[in-house]
Amino acid sequence: MSLDQSWFTESDDNTGLAFSLKLGQPVHSETTPYQTIGIYRTETFGYLMTIDGCTMVSTRDNFLYHEMMSHPVLNSHPAPKRVVIVGGGDCGTLREVLKHPEVESAVQVEIDERVTRLSEQYFPELCESNEDPRAELYFGDGIQWMKDAPAKSIDVLIIDSTDPIGPAEGLFGKRFYADCIKALKADGILVHQSESPLLHLELITAMHRAMRDSGFAQTQLLHFPQTIYPSGWWSASLACKSGEPLAQRLDEAAIAALNCRYYSAAIHRGAFALPPFVEQALKGL
Amino acid sequence: MSLDQSWFTESDDNTGLAFSLKLGQPVHSETTPYQTIGIYRTETFGYLMTIDGCTMVSTRDNFLYHEMMSHPVLNSHPAPKRVVIVGGGDCGTLREVLKHPEVESAVQVEIDERVTRLSEQYFPELCESNEDPRAELYFGDGIQWMKDAPAKSIDVLIIDSTDPIGPAEGLFGKRFYADCIKALKADGILVHQSESPLLHLELITAMHRAMRDSGFAQTQLLHFPQTIYPSGWWSASLACKSGEPLAQRLDEAAIAALNCRYYSAAIHRGAFALPPFVEQALKGL
Repeated sequence: MSLDQSWFTESDDNTGLAFSLKLGQPVHSETTPYQTIGIYRTETFGYLMTIDGCTMVSTRDNFLYHEMMSHPVLNSHPAPKRVVIVGGGDCGTLREVLKHPEVESAVQVEIDERVTRLSEQYFPELCESNEDPRAELYFGDGIQWMKDAPAKSIDVLIIDSTDPIGPAEGLFGKRFYADCIKALKADGILVHQSESPLLHLELITAMHRAMRDSGFAQTQLLHFPQTIYPSGWWSASLACKSGEPLAQRLDEAAIAALNCRYYSAAIHRGAFALPPFVEQALKGL
Repeated sequence: MSLDQSWFTESDDNTGLAFSLKLGQPVHSETTPYQTIGIYRTETFGYLMTIDGCTMVSTRDNFLYHEMMSHPVLNSHPAPKRVVIVGGGDCGTLREVLKHPEVESAVQVEIDERVTRLSEQYFPELCESNEDPRAELYFGDGIQWMKDAPAKSIDVLIIDSTDPIGPAEGLFGKRFYADCIKALKADGILVHQSESPLLHLELITAMHRAMRDSGFAQTQLLHFPQTIYPSGWWSASLACKSGEPLAQRLDEAAIAALNCRYYSAAIHRGAFALPPFVEQALKGL
């Protein structure tokens, strides 16, 4: 069968895959200096935000991504006080970060203010911590911001970027990672969304190589389901300045207080368990 | 955008989701007494088999499903000697089962012989253990087969069925599960594919309730990525005749000898780690 215009479809000839969501009425579309943002009302996934035709966030399944981009890295750090999010303009990652009482400040550095304004309108639940006194919303270029960041000032750095094409391309390279290392404290950790283990294993390997080449002592991969992203299976890559084993602050009471739908202590451990085909690709970097 | 006929698309108005694979040339289609089977050559996922318009198996990602339908349940049983697969006509589960040296016999009970014959032709790698002297291919109705099975004759029973509509509907109810219990030995375990944790949580809960109502002492859920199935996230449900804790035969050397691409001891443990929203739904059954 073929799909008509009553579906939003993201198709990719490189992967030979397409993913579609059935639409209700069209809602909004605008072109900013950076990208074209679309908002759709879907029949079963709530609202959907797209950027340049790619699915970014849906009401129904964003908890998977936002929880897994924030809690595993924060609970891998001994004392995450100062957190920076590069990208993440929908504010969902910021909300999860601020659930941690030990976080003293969290800056969200988003290049496109319109992403945040539209999220406030269509995904208000993701923005409910934007007024937290620990939160700062900065709108500007993350690459420049990181260059200018004071040395050794950040505990945890979350790169919640779009794919490595278009405005986010510069976030995936050695030069950017080197600026991140400078800005991180000695036990600082970076996490970067790193696409699908099934579809983008070469990209994941290249990212880990770039992270290590730029001076990170170790890298780790974690994986989780994410329905609206290609293949439904997604990953994030941790890069640590120190070669010491990761902290595992998996206190059941503290984790229960996060009130997560996907993340738990057991999910944390399971997310770092790599399939042999992925382990093989990352071996000997 | 819309997708034309150069894509295979499975769309579902209930979930409001569609998944598409870009096609090369069309290969084969036939209607058997049970269903319509399609074979497509895709651009990036190898061959694809569909049944009644639903994706069943692709060359590229079937290892996820077949490994997770076989190894977790077999390694949860203290000594799986006699294994029965209901459905599973593509023979991929049978191949994984026969990797276990402790398995003495494995019968595949598939209603539609054409599924197996087409798999031999287009997925020969899945059929490479069909000539194993421990293997038996039986073609006939799994519901009747299970009624007729000698009591307490089976260690592990794998229900590798299509969705609970059409020919597989009768495999999802209390009556069938009661026949399974009779046929299982005292420490016997059944595993049944149980759809998507995100999309089909009510079905999963109903399955677990039916399993327990029919007399199984405990049920367990495990989950894993599966690109070509709706949402990209899939599950299997274990039902055990005994209330004893599951065996965990996670010997690293034995597991390495299985030569898996997805499954490992760590993946085994992680697959049973349930997200809070799933745990909540299954609590108090």
